Amino acid sequence: MDVRSVLQRYHDGGIDLDEAERLLRLDHLRRVGEHTVFDMARALRRGIPEVVYGRTKSPEMLREIVAALREDDNIVVVSRASEAQYQALCEMDGPMEHGSQSGTIIIGKPPEGRGSIGIITAGTSDIPVADEARMVARAMGCDALCRYDVGVAAIHRILGPIQDMIEAGVDAIVVVAGMEGALPTVVSSLSSVPVIGVPTSTGYGHGGGGEGALMSMLQTCSPGLVVVNIDNGIGAGTTAALISRRARR
Amino acid sequence: MDVRSVLQRYHDGGIDLDEAERLLRLDHLRRVGEHTVFDMARALRRGIPEVVYGRTKSPEMLREIVAALREDDNIVVVSRASEAQYQALCEMDGPMEHGSQSGTIIIGKPPEGRGSIGIITAGTSDIPVADEARMVARAMGCDALCRYDVGVAAIHRILGPIQDMIEAGVDAIVVVAGMEGALPTVVSSLSSVPVIGVPTSTGYGHGGGGEGALMSMLQTCSPGLVVVNIDNGIGAGTTAALISRRARR
Amino acid sequence: MDVRSVLQRYHDGGIDLDEAERLLRLDHLRRVGEHTVFDMARALRRGIPEVVYGRTKSPEMLREIVAALREDDNIVVVSRASEAQYQALCEMDGPMEHGSQSGTIIIGKPPEGRGSIGIITAGTSDIPVADEARMVARAMGCDALCRYDVGVAAIHRILGPIQDMIEAGVDAIVVVAGMEGALPTVVSSLSSVPVIGVPTSTGYGHGGGGEGALMSMLQTCSPGLVVVNIDNGIGAGTTAALISRRARR
Amino acid sequence: MDVRSVLQRYHDGGIDLDEAERLLRLDHLRRVGEHTVFDMARALRRGIPEVVYGRTKSPEMLREIVAALREDDNIVVVSRASEAQYQALCEMDGPMEHGSQSGTIIIGKPPEGRGSIGIITAGTSDIPVADEARMVARAMGCDALCRYDVGVAAIHRILGPIQDMIEAGVDAIVVVAGMEGALPTVVSSLSSVPVIGVPTSTGYGHGGGGEGALMSMLQTCSPGLVVVNIDNGIGAGTTAALISRRARR
Amino acid sequence: MDVRSVLQRYHDGGIDLDEAERLLRLDHLRRVGEHTVFDMARALRRGIPEVVYGRTKSPEMLREIVAALREDDNIVVVSRASEAQYQALCEMDGPMEHGSQSGTIIIGKPPEGRGSIGIITAGTSDIPVADEARMVARAMGCDALCRYDVGVAAIHRILGPIQDMIEAGVDAIVVVAGMEGALPTVVSSLSSVPVIGVPTSTGYGHGGGGEGALMSMLQTCSPGLVVVNIDNGIGAGTTAALISRRARR
Amino acid sequence: MDVRSVLQRYHDGGIDLDEAERLLRLDHLRRVGEHTVFDMARALRRGIPEVVYGRTKSPEMLREIVAALREDDNIVVVSRASEAQYQALCEMDGPMEHGSQSGTIIIGKPPEGRGSIGIITAGTSDIPVADEARMVARAMGCDALCRYDVGVAAIHRILGPIQDMIEAGVDAIVVVAGMEGALPTVVSSLSSVPVIGVPTSTGYGHGGGGEGALMSMLQTCSPGLVVVNIDNGIGAGTTAALISRRARR
Amino acid sequence: MDVRSVLQRYHDGGIDLDEAERLLRLDHLRRVGEHTVFDMARALRRGIPEVVYGRTKSPEMLREIVAALREDDNIVVVSRASEAQYQALCEMDGPMEHGSQSGTIIIGKPPEGRGSIGIITAGTSDIPVADEARMVARAMGCDALCRYDVGVAAIHRILGPIQDMIEAGVDAIVVVAGMEGALPTVVSSLSSVPVIGVPTSTGYGHGGGGEGALMSMLQTCSPGLVVVNIDNGIGAGTTAALISRRARR
Amino acid sequence: MDVRSVLQRYHDGGIDLDEAERLLRLDHLRRVGEHTVFDMARALRRGIPEVVYGRTKSPEMLREIVAALREDDNIVVVSRASEAQYQALCEMDGPMEHGSQSGTIIIGKPPEGRGSIGIITAGTSDIPVADEARMVARAMGCDALCRYDVGVAAIHRILGPIQDMIEAGVDAIVVVAGMEGALPTVVSSLSSVPVIGVPTSTGYGHGGGGEGALMSMLQTCSPGLVVVNIDNGIGAGTTAALISRRARR
Repeated sequence: MDVRSVLQRYHDGGIDLDEAERLLRLDHLRRVGEHTVFDMARALRRGIPEVVYGRTKSPEMLREIVAALREDDNIVVVSRASEAQYQALCEMDGPMEHGSQSGTIIIGKPPEGRGSIGIITAGTSDIPVADEARMVARAMGCDALCRYDVGVAAIHRILGPIQDMIEAGVDAIVVVAGMEGALPTVVSSLSSVPVIGVPTSTGYGHGGGGEGALMSMLQTCSPGLVVVNIDNGIGAGTTAALISRRARR
Repeated sequence: MDVRSVLQRYHDGGIDLDEAERLLRLDHLRRVGEHTVFDMARALRRGIPEVVYGRTKSPEMLREIVAALREDDNIVVVSRASEAQYQALCEMDGPMEHGSQSGTIIIGKPPEGRGSIGIITAGTSDIPVADEARMVARAMGCDALCRYDVGVAAIHRILGPIQDMIEAGVDAIVVVAGMEGALPTVVSSLSSVPVIGVPTSTGYGHGGGGEGALMSMLQTCSPGLVVVNIDNGIGAGTTAALISRRARR
Repeated sequence: MDVRSVLQRYHDGGIDLDEAERLLRLDHLRRVGEHTVFDMARALRRGIPEVVYGRTKSPEMLREIVAALREDDNIVVVSRASEAQYQALCEMDGPMEHGSQSGTIIIGKPPEGRGSIGIITAGTSDIPVADEARMVARAMGCDALCRYDVGVAAIHRILGPIQDMIEAGVDAIVVVAGMEGALPTVVSSLSSVPVIGVPTSTGYGHGGGGEGALMSMLQTCSPGLVVVNIDNGIGAGTTAALISRRARR
Repeated sequence: MDVRSVLQRYHDGGIDLDEAERLLRLDHLRRVGEHTVFDMARALRRGIPEVVYGRTKSPEMLREIVAALREDDNIVVVSRASEAQYQALCEMDGPMEHGSQSGTIIIGKPPEGRGSIGIITAGTSDIPVADEARMVARAMGCDALCRYDVGVAAIHRILGPIQDMIEAGVDAIVVVAGMEGALPTVVSSLSSVPVIGVPTSTGYGHGGGGEGALMSMLQTCSPGLVVVNIDNGIGAGTTAALISRRARR
Repeated sequence: MDVRSVLQRYHDGGIDLDEAERLLRLDHLRRVGEHTVFDMARALRRGIPEVVYGRTKSPEMLREIVAALREDDNIVVVSRASEAQYQALCEMDGPMEHGSQSGTIIIGKPPEGRGSIGIITAGTSDIPVADEARMVARAMGCDALCRYDVGVAAIHRILGPIQDMIEAGVDAIVVVAGMEGALPTVVSSLSSVPVIGVPTSTGYGHGGGGEGALMSMLQTCSPGLVVVNIDNGIGAGTTAALISRRARR
Repeated sequence: MDVRSVLQRYHDGGIDLDEAERLLRLDHLRRVGEHTVFDMARALRRGIPEVVYGRTKSPEMLREIVAALREDDNIVVVSRASEAQYQALCEMDGPMEHGSQSGTIIIGKPPEGRGSIGIITAGTSDIPVADEARMVARAMGCDALCRYDVGVAAIHRILGPIQDMIEAGVDAIVVVAGMEGALPTVVSSLSSVPVIGVPTSTGYGHGGGGEGALMSMLQTCSPGLVVVNIDNGIGAGTTAALISRRARR
Repeated sequence: MDVRSVLQRYHDGGIDLDEAERLLRLDHLRRVGEHTVFDMARALRRGIPEVVYGRTKSPEMLREIVAALREDDNIVVVSRASEAQYQALCEMDGPMEHGSQSGTIIIGKPPEGRGSIGIITAGTSDIPVADEARMVARAMGCDALCRYDVGVAAIHRILGPIQDMIEAGVDAIVVVAGMEGALPTVVSSLSSVPVIGVPTSTGYGHGGGGEGALMSMLQTCSPGLVVVNIDNGIGAGTTAALISRRARR
Repeated sequence: MDVRSVLQRYHDGGIDLDEAERLLRLDHLRRVGEHTVFDMARALRRGIPEVVYGRTKSPEMLREIVAALREDDNIVVVSRASEAQYQALCEMDGPMEHGSQSGTIIIGKPPEGRGSIGIITAGTSDIPVADEARMVARAMGCDALCRYDVGVAAIHRILGPIQDMIEAGVDAIVVVAGMEGALPTVVSSLSSVPVIGVPTSTGYGHGGGGEGALMSMLQTCSPGLVVVNIDNGIGAGTTAALISRRARR
């Protein structure tokens, strides 16, 4: 019922004031709803696979959720999955990849050739978060060149990995670092592609748990560095893959 | 002047081999006055113009610094310049653009056709930060499609601007928002290009000064959203331009 | 003994200075005490059932407390009860309802027809808190229309639940959300009834544990949104029920 | 002008069908100047007048914005207006009310009889925030019974105001308090209507600037108390008026 | 044994001059085991018994430490002792008292008649901290009048306990409260003796863990209220006893 | 005028029975101007003079308030008064004292012989806060022995002042310190009376503004030390005077 | 009077119990006092000149203080002095040096040849803090090799200054940096002498005001880096000079 | 390929624009790489042994890492090793030392005679952190004079240890303290060598976990005190050893 009809019925006494008011409020929402032309699944719309956070689910519940999401042959990513969850998913049919360093699982066959990114970690304890970024990019069809444990306290160790990445022609670099979080700034200052910093929850004391690394990256003096939240490998990998996919159209 | 421009001018005969080598040489460090060392190489290496923070400098000092940086015809960006600083720079020769909403000034003739980005603000008080992003992207040869005061409290107002950006084919969207900072998440959920959120220091009370908006963006449930620090329009515009330039090679 | 009597006894030497001072101080408190006309039980006065926080009590202790509170046939609500506590209470006589998603138990027969509220959650992990709100409202005789896992990253999913709530004529909407906490602002901007936001302690990194969601809700640009503390489903449900009861008198 | 008022004026013959439809139509977005987009629909949809934050605008700009918003005879509220801004608005025709304690101005003739709320402050320095709440409720047609400087350090002074409010039959109570912020909890524990706490930015030292009062209200042991951000009188007054309007339909 | 007791025992002939001098001598530092140095002089100098923090010690280590400290018949207090630690200490000779609600143990016979204090808690979960205060005051010869679970949400329940304390003539009141921490302010406003507020680490969400209660007490509008750190029953009890002992000389 | 003074004046024949009763009556609430309600009963009940915070009031408003409060010859304290405010008060009749280091003014003749306290500051910038404590204690009839700029970085300078205080027999010591706030702990460890620490808002960087000093005092390892909020000289002086008055009955 | 004498006089009735107790408490303090063998001025004891913080003092007061401190020909350092203060000090006789970049003044003739330190800044806005460090070291007889505006975003610019410092044989390096504060970690990783990091209050947004730089330095992965508070050039320069002086004995 | 060659090949058409740009960017990095003359292992360069953080590694993994690091007979330090890790390392050949209080292990034969430092703790719970500092200094050939449990609440106990350290001629003092963290300031004020404060994560409530101690040390009024992060014994011991080694050259 459109605005005019409501007004006329109200005028004719077909509906009372309260009912007219209620109908006009609803109409507003319907108009907004029809307005929304983006009415496809998010995965279709954005080209980002559905990511299921594993940690809070039982193996059975997880398998059920994944099965439902797989119905139209979508790629599904499970993050932070336990060994038990992985075993439960292994019983399903179809292709599957397991990033055991981060507990990330890709169910379905990812596309290929959608781009190339670089991933660097400052230390070894940053690798699980880096692996999460690698896996979600992989699920989006994007290859990752990885250089782990590059450090920041030894400048000369940083140059080699960056040269490798320039030579490989990556379109974005994810830099994962805890403690003082200085590495993303240094990498950004040496490269001409966007750098995505991921603080990790390593370190103790004041600024521990990743807060120091996050602050450091936000305070960077190098334009071209952007940041995701602490330990958010999924967010960093997704964005890097979006950048690279765009560059490879 | 970035590497590509040097190469093109050399190729076109605008400069000779010696001059090209000189421009590309790596020992570009040069002293301005007594203690300001500018890394000329950075502009060459990264294709990002030197950004001079205006606020702490006298008009004379600023003009001197800009003159030195301009020697090799580099593009220079001055951020947060006062009216007096702008007047002082106006006395210099050569092309100049003034983003009066943010006090950003481009000295030199920016390249063109290096890409296209979108910029959205939640409110009117976010416009100065958005304008800073627009100007630095402009200095890197990247056009910006701007939609300001889009709000978050009225969903249907968000859809139009996003449709415009999709139609225009932007490669990245900068979303500037203060207070609850929800707009970047909403935009990111509706688009297939990377979104860069910029919290602004609006709002008062708990979470005021941009802290609430920053937290909100870091806690986003939409992968594909990355963040820069509060009010950091330069960082957001630079990264968006890097993404778009990469996509337009 | 009134002020005059004290003065006279002091004057006559019946009491000394110290005693007179002590008596006059006591008198003051007694006057305030007599002044208090609200001397009924809180449940009677406010129409809010006694809520017993389960977590820190043994099953036996809990049963004993509930039995004492039930003496005048009051409605008692136990929050965050374990399975063992629930079993212990099951041994008691009389009506009982169990909200197993939140571990909330209503002992006694709640009133009916005291109003109607809406409850929306952003994700599935917000459901326990929403269920707590639903149960306490139920104990106050108020029905709840619940729509869970509505998301914020997909705008079009939000419109349906709000239309349902307008059609049902709810008097207040409780919106439960963690992470970036943007949903309550969006719901508030689309509805003409008060909205009560409940941040939840989901999310990790900067702003995790609910702090980001709380900030976001406090910084809302939508007037008409009020907030309770992180995970405080009891507070939100109680207030929503008070609002609805008032509207249904 | 809200939905109900449009309907009534249409019914009374004050406006015809076309005019009513126009007023209710959903494409109400309208540009004021170059970049301020006001959501006229919001006032219609939610029955909440547009609130213009005065502090950042010149008197001329403010008058222009208000004039544009007034075109369809809507109620407009200006918050935190200076004396100069007030003078500029006084030059406009039509009814206007000035809450000089808070610098809140209502332009247009507010509806009447839409409810009744109570407003209590702990101290005298909390009055400006309380006055802001009073004025926005007034603009929504809601009367406020105000009791200021009630204190918390003298319990017996609290009882009188609460009795007054119970006798007057208010549907919600706004309690404004800084420093330790204990008053809203005490009021909530003594009343059967929802209480909205507003922390104020008084106090110094640890927890100063309103953070202590906010924490205290969020940590309340009294269910039925909800909170808005520090100094947010607009938010509290709006919500209280929404509650009361609902109760008075 | 404090200075006064040594003097009295010397006066009464219980000890001779040499022994008295030895007890009073200032080089009382004495090693217990290998690395624990106890400042025996402190007990003498300040009249405060040595307090041994139980939590980090094995039952055997604890018994050894206590035995060493007991050599000159000093009063020793063990705080936060486990059941196992209590059993280990039970095997020692001599008088001992056990405050089982807080795990506080007094070894040795406390003096008597050194004063009287009041202790009030807001809730039942505050009792362990209150009990710790009661026990350390007891060890200093000071009686405590205790009123637990007085609440703040029900004003009339507060008056009775305060009247009792005035009648009993206590010299200081310790008020223990978590969550919004308003009770100490209310008690202080009603009494003419110093009030010591102890925030407790109850409550969750923003301001949980005692931070909200601490802020609230520091922001108090009632002069005459002082504060110790969260859960610091020892500090509150000691200070209250010092005040009362001074008043009873 | 406090309870004791009323009793004494009545006893001495200075006032008759009716007047004494009137002064002691409990309905002392009285309106000053339109919205300032002073709790006259508080002074009577607690023996603490009314403290008027000067900073936010005009000289005229302040004089009016003080005049009203002085009607029954009560002692009034004005804190943080400007020179202009002081001049305005000078025009009133009757005794007045001015603590120019803190801008504290006592209007009326304070009682005498109600006790003796010590006040120590770490540095010279802590003196205004100390002076505020001294003045409010003075208004309660309590003398203060002051030792300023004692430092903490030079241990031997601390011993002298403490000896002086022991010899003078003070009943409580107020220790005012900013920066690292260690002095109250050191003083407490050397004395047998309660110590009240007052952090001051000196210092810059991390922990500046008094937060570091506050934390340090709350974390003290010396039982017997209690704390008030940053810069709260009124609270510290009041409590110390309450302790001393109790000890001198 | 020693312990034994007090005991004997008490026993003989020469003094009563209270007096005996008081004397024994005093005696204890005296014993500690005699114990203190460090009874010289701090400047003599530690070889650190007295530093007078200029900002809060009038020019006259400052000159008076300096004159008093100069009596024995001590070196005095005034920090953060204004131009007016400098002029006032210029009227005094004797040698004086002025570090105009930081407003630091040395009065008296500093010793020479007491060592050599390095000072590095990340940017130009860090120079005032570096200059403060340089001046206080100078006052202790220690030379400083300064390299300002070295950056962190351009690694190759860092190597030169460090080589210079190694060649010059400095014994400690002070590194002053704001924003992300990464430079001290990088310098520390490249040098074999202790590095003292000084965060500066540059930068805005999250982690601004020096908090990000401080966190970054505390979280350093390079052992050998220690930190002073934000902007504390005096502390860094003093410690570096102490280290160098020790190395040059 | 140098800049000139790239330019010529580009000019001659041997490479295209993209390739030329890529080669010139790489060249830049190579030039920086050759520039780095510090191309030795960090241990060699800085004289600091490699420190392996034990906590996150399995005993086998740890033994493998240590074996690899030991190949050139380097000294290796393992921090926070468990008993199981220690047993695994015991199976290796060669000299080894075990600091059982901190779980620090030195593998290899440390040098000798490289200096002497002092280590002081405030309490017994600070000893593990102190032991970590002692062990890493030991691994660098530096002896430590240790005085544990010195306290701050009893000033006279502090003097002895400092006298011992002065007599022993230590070149730096590490002071480890939790809770209020005042001891480093006191020690620094009494000594003429640099003092390194280490806050420890003891204490509870506001400022617990070491934050209060850290703030206190950063806010110190004693120049000459520098700080490392909470519990960072490795950092403090390394720096103290660097200082002493420098002094003993």
